[in-house]
Amino acid sequence: MKKRYNYTDIHQFTKDLFKKTGCSDKDAQSVADVLTAAELRGIPSHGMLRIIDYIKLFEAGRINVKPNITIERETLSTAVINGDGAFGPVAGTYSMEKAIEKAEKAGSAWISTNNSNHYGIAGFYTLKAAAKDMIGISMTNANPLVAPTLSVSKLLGTNPIAVSVPAGEQPTFTADFATTPIARGKLAMMARKNENAPTGFVQDKSGVPSTNPDILKEGGSMLTLGGDYLHGSHKGFCMSAVVDIFSAVLSKANFGPFVPPSVSYLPIPKNQPGKGTGHFFGAMRIDAFQPAEEFKEYMDKWIATFRNATPAKGEERVYIPGDIERDKEAYHKQHGIEVLDSIVNDINEFAEKYKCDKLE
Amino acid sequence: MKKRYNYTDIHQFTKDLFKKTGCSDKDAQSVADVLTAAELRGIPSHGMLRIIDYIKLFEAGRINVKPNITIERETLSTAVINGDGAFGPVAGTYSMEKAIEKAEKAGSAWISTNNSNHYGIAGFYTLKAAAKDMIGISMTNANPLVAPTLSVSKLLGTNPIAVSVPAGEQPTFTADFATTPIARGKLAMMARKNENAPTGFVQDKSGVPSTNPDILKEGGSMLTLGGDYLHGSHKGFCMSAVVDIFSAVLSKANFGPFVPPSVSYLPIPKNQPGKGTGHFFGAMRIDAFQPAEEFKEYMDKWIATFRNATPAKGEERVYIPGDIERDKEAYHKQHGIEVLDSIVNDINEFAEKYKCDKLE
Repeated sequence: MKKRYNYTDIHQFTKDLFKKTGCSDKDAQSVADVLTAAELRGIPSHGMLRIIDYIKLFEAGRINVKPNITIERETLSTAVINGDGAFGPVAGTYSMEKAIEKAEKAGSAWISTNNSNHYGIAGFYTLKAAAKDMIGISMTNANPLVAPTLSVSKLLGTNPIAVSVPAGEQPTFTADFATTPIARGKLAMMARKNENAPTGFVQDKSGVPSTNPDILKEGGSMLTLGGDYLHGSHKGFCMSAVVDIFSAVLSKANFGPFVPPSVSYLPIPKNQPGKGTGHFFGAMRIDAFQPAEEFKEYMDKWIATFRNATPAKGEERVYIPGDIERDKEAYHKQHGIEVLDSIVNDINEFAEKYKCDKLE
Repeated sequence: MKKRYNYTDIHQFTKDLFKKTGCSDKDAQSVADVLTAAELRGIPSHGMLRIIDYIKLFEAGRINVKPNITIERETLSTAVINGDGAFGPVAGTYSMEKAIEKAEKAGSAWISTNNSNHYGIAGFYTLKAAAKDMIGISMTNANPLVAPTLSVSKLLGTNPIAVSVPAGEQPTFTADFATTPIARGKLAMMARKNENAPTGFVQDKSGVPSTNPDILKEGGSMLTLGGDYLHGSHKGFCMSAVVDIFSAVLSKANFGPFVPPSVSYLPIPKNQPGKGTGHFFGAMRIDAFQPAEEFKEYMDKWIATFRNATPAKGEERVYIPGDIERDKEAYHKQHGIEVLDSIVNDINEFAEKYKCDKLE
């Protein structure tokens, strides 16, 4: 069962709750901004549901709600940021803002962040850059669930990449995608519905293709984008590896199998070589490449060309990356956001415990 | 039929031939470096075969062998370069060297290049950055053969991405991959052998999945990495789109359907909005993020962790991006490079025509 909630109420609720954990007003705002953006954009797996995980991580002592985020090393156009164990959206927002600030001066900037946690939807950060007439890039490593091509070891997360590109008349282009064929949450949904997973999503513990969406519980693993070697899963592996290296090797966060889990019921891996979870952020001023208006006009042409592509038989239209999420955002702002009763119950228990207003 | 040739002979032959077209010694060297690197790394579709295409493009008046390559716009960490219609490897080499030079000062640098042509293998450029203790990134747009997800319009090329990351004891990580499940050349090979293509590679002119490797001749198109929407082809589309935007919108080269063909027998698209083919190059100094030795040690750990992953049943080892190409390079340097007789005949006809020594 679901009820609808106004997005401003959801935002206020989230901010209030995180302030009660000890977060500053600004940091609670960052967490609320990121989680609410996921609900607005139609990605509930990264929305209110994460309040539960985030608070439980805090209660397990795995989050620093009074972080002293610092720059460990920098050049004109780069920096390594230490998130000091903050909630991911706090370290992420700080890092993206720093990338934008440095790009203002240097033309572009690239930040690798260590000592962070689950940072929400990657596209939230890139849209911040786009709002400043910059191309935004964001990626993060994540809990290991995915095996490299021809392997059965779970060494990679679903490692998403987001890229936003501002346009003029056309809306901002925003690609935001995991480097696996499917998100973990969708597999869980198939298992709950007793459905088979399509081939190309998961394999068993020997590396044999499987259609059991619950196979991860039996030592199985997810596959990278492409599915199998024949269909280019090594290319998905390349992308996922690049996300891990940019997020964690550049910053000396934990890479691959050592990434700390984003839920409190899983143990932190032993012998971690680095600090926390890693992210990577980039910002490139469009006027570093072309006068801003000319760039936007040309990007409008690009978008219009692709939007006017001929749809395949039976399809009504061709989508530009970002179209679907933007449509959902407009809808949710007008009509409210549906949240599962079970989630609302859980987060309202926290509201009671931390003495703040419930979500009604 | 194939014969083996010493790679230094192939390089000398290629350089001599391109000098005879009017290229400077340095520019002929760039073309020979790039095409020979492809043969060495086991990517013959981008090796000697391209001599034929490149010379024919030159003879069709589509290449400027005396280019005046210029910087159209720049900031501390970015530039737009005009390749002035040069052979792709000439504009590409100039651009990557400029990225490296700017990164020396700013920490990182990003170059978008217009007015270029087919630039060979993307990994050639990124390895140049890795040799300077930088992470190298390179991408290019290409002839439109690929349809966006849910569309039948050929709007994208196989748009490759390459990333090289230097390590210490371990060899350089080099991912170099098309954003489609398969390269165009492999489809052509299947057609020649009368084999069916696996599903997920191509579709017919209505958008119905096809196993006919020759379907492009009947209005069909290639699919992006992922194959179909269910398996994440929209993620492959996102990547391919980002390559096109970074290569051509930032630089105002021709994007998507307007990219000039890399072979002379195809007409140049009408109403081109930009200049030539576009590329994108990036360089990030590893010591902008960590002391170089510390970075390399940590990258060694990353590579060792992935190399030691458990292989799937029936597999002997797990490959790190770049392993296979590096092994081939060592083999080809020692044992020579096999080139098809039909290719040698064609390029030796050019040698005769342009009065230089034949490849023997």
